[in-house]
Amino acid sequence: GNKHKIAVIAGDGIGTEVMPEGVRVLEAAAEVYGIDLTFDTFEFGSCDYYLKHGQMMPDNWKDQIGNHDAIYFGAVGWPDTVPDHISLWGSLIQFRRDFDQYVSLRPAKLMPGVPSPLAGRKPGDIDFYVVRENTEGEYSSVGGKMYPGTDREIVIQETVMSRVGVDRILKYAFDLAQKRPRKHLTSATKSNGISITMPYWDERVLEMAKSYPDVTWDKYHIDILTAQFVMNPDRFDVVVASNLFGDILSDLGPACTGTIGLAPSGNINPERKFPSLFEPVHGSAPDIAGKGIANPIGQIWSGAMMLDHLGHTDAHDGIMRAIEQVLLSKELRTGDLGGTANTATCGKAIADAV
Amino acid sequence: GNKHKIAVIAGDGIGTEVMPEGVRVLEAAAEVYGIDLTFDTFEFGSCDYYLKHGQMMPDNWKDQIGNHDAIYFGAVGWPDTVPDHISLWGSLIQFRRDFDQYVSLRPAKLMPGVPSPLAGRKPGDIDFYVVRENTEGEYSSVGGKMYPGTDREIVIQETVMSRVGVDRILKYAFDLAQKRPRKHLTSATKSNGISITMPYWDERVLEMAKSYPDVTWDKYHIDILTAQFVMNPDRFDVVVASNLFGDILSDLGPACTGTIGLAPSGNINPERKFPSLFEPVHGSAPDIAGKGIANPIGQIWSGAMMLDHLGHTDAHDGIMRAIEQVLLSKELRTGDLGGTANTATCGKAIADAV
Ligand SMILES: CC(C)[C@H](C(=O)O)[C@@H](O)C(=O)O
Ligand SMILES: CC(C)[C@H](C(=O)O)[C@@H](O)C(=O)O
Repeated sequence: GNKHKIAVIAGDGIGTEVMPEGVRVLEAAAEVYGIDLTFDTFEFGSCDYYLKHGQMMPDNWKDQIGNHDAIYFGAVGWPDTVPDHISLWGSLIQFRRDFDQYVSLRPAKLMPGVPSPLAGRKPGDIDFYVVRENTEGEYSSVGGKMYPGTDREIVIQETVMSRVGVDRILKYAFDLAQKRPRKHLTSATKSNGISITMPYWDERVLEMAKSYPDVTWDKYHIDILTAQFVMNPDRFDVVVASNLFGDILSDLGPACTGTIGLAPSGNINPERKFPSLFEPVHGSAPDIAGKGIANPIGQIWSGAMMLDHLGHTDAHDGIMRAIEQVLLSKELRTGDLGGTANTATCGKAIADAV
Repeated sequence: GNKHKIAVIAGDGIGTEVMPEGVRVLEAAAEVYGIDLTFDTFEFGSCDYYLKHGQMMPDNWKDQIGNHDAIYFGAVGWPDTVPDHISLWGSLIQFRRDFDQYVSLRPAKLMPGVPSPLAGRKPGDIDFYVVRENTEGEYSSVGGKMYPGTDREIVIQETVMSRVGVDRILKYAFDLAQKRPRKHLTSATKSNGISITMPYWDERVLEMAKSYPDVTWDKYHIDILTAQFVMNPDRFDVVVASNLFGDILSDLGPACTGTIGLAPSGNINPERKFPSLFEPVHGSAPDIAGKGIANPIGQIWSGAMMLDHLGHTDAHDGIMRAIEQVLLSKELRTGDLGGTANTATCGKAIADAV
């Protein structure tokens, strides 16, 4: 289809500053590529909302946004007033769970004009995807405390993996690898230390691989895998990982390419039973919030991924070209990339380039 | 004391190749610094032993090595014949648990002659310790499987943190930070995702910090912390982390300094109720085993840490100077560092330099 209703949730901190630029670029792309986009803005899913209402979202949040074609999300969290495990679990993580967005998809890519902290790497050298399981695993809320307040105090938290949950993320990752030129998959494990869930993960990878004879694959323990991201990032094509390991790898990957401030992510329900959610990898960044200097590219790149998901690959590619063009100009890059632009200047430039 | 009985367990793969060099250097240091070292070698704790006896260690292993002053360990694991979770849990991890070696201590340090994968860093720029909880946390063997072999199959594994376990590792880390010039501690958390155990960890850090008013401290979520290791490794002084997070950070730290092939580690029981164990961070490396080309410096540096632990700081410093001297010569470095030496040449050179 050509008509899409987008739910916009800016959240907290710099989320509220980069979101307008994201929407600006999407509107430009909609015009150029003839897409009919409607934006509905929601106040909930922010710490401000929590302070007013005592909960992160209204009881009927699902009715309000469940029928949108996608959710365009900024960043959530303001640890000084609301503990992270309340703000996140009451919004972002609840979307991921209730809308069964079981794939988190995050690219790590060396971009022109973006200095990498790694020595001797240039654009083209590093280009891989982290596919993260997004609904179970280490992020369970199952567990509790015993003997509270005493010397014998213990806390327990369970990691839960289901066959359904593991197989569907592996399938998505193998499918993605199969579509890419190198057709290579890397699985993150830790079966030598995490002795129950991780051997199970390995077992399911072995099983799934049988259905993809044209995809080569290997596995690394998470400790040495993080080391390999730094030492040999060019080895990777598609990296599939559990919820926690994927969380780590999808920050570390963009850190290695210098793109942590501009990396995008998709929280995807591949069956399209529920809306998928697109958000920058960066958080609400209380330290720079309110200054208008945040880099809007993570938000804008996430918007491009959203259009791709909605079937508009041409619009996605157009936005990506505009981003790469603007990145080459010092006047149009933000300060984190050694440029002189503020959030709005950079966003406008990308919209114009589209 | 001046007399120490060392239990030597070489293990598998390159463990058996680097161990003789480690012992050679220790013997040289013993002579120079007037230390009386006795070495007792044990065959168990290796996959060879497992294949012969059906278990990694004899039933009376504790009697055999429990009265030694320290254990000098190589590397264990041979995944083609023995699954890692058997070989590791039946040796290394059992030592850590049964000898209550609750501190894993691992330095990340830029060394002369060792190229770092990070751009623009030089010796002196990076110099920190990772202090890892080594006996509980994510490495529990508690859990299991339900509905095996069906579509409803689930596996569960528990993370267990005790107040005793968390407090004692934090105390060790704060004590260490207090002794260092910068007196700074960083705590690794993930309380925004791992919603039960990690907020508890944070709570205990806050509490412990009150007893160390002269130590400054901060905390990072593990995802962004791995990114910071790559982007700003000079920020860190002492980094304290749970078992899993510490495992990751103590591979990633040395990867950033280019020293992953030569990083040492101590598994320490600070109360000296049980022997502590010293081993290189690298594993048994089946891919290069049997060729005599492995870098022995991880084993040798671990030996230096062992002497330090036994009270011989002068001998530790002497070995470290010898390592730094040998690293500067291409003929004496191994191939992983662009040198031309084999394992034995490098080991002998360090022994001579001592
Ligand atoms: C081999 C493995 C069980 C071990 C661990 O994870 O503790 C290793 O990675 C280490 O860091 O010593
Ligand atoms: C904010 C936090 C709960 C979240 C996560 O860990 O999933 C974030 O780090 C991310 O990667 O989207």
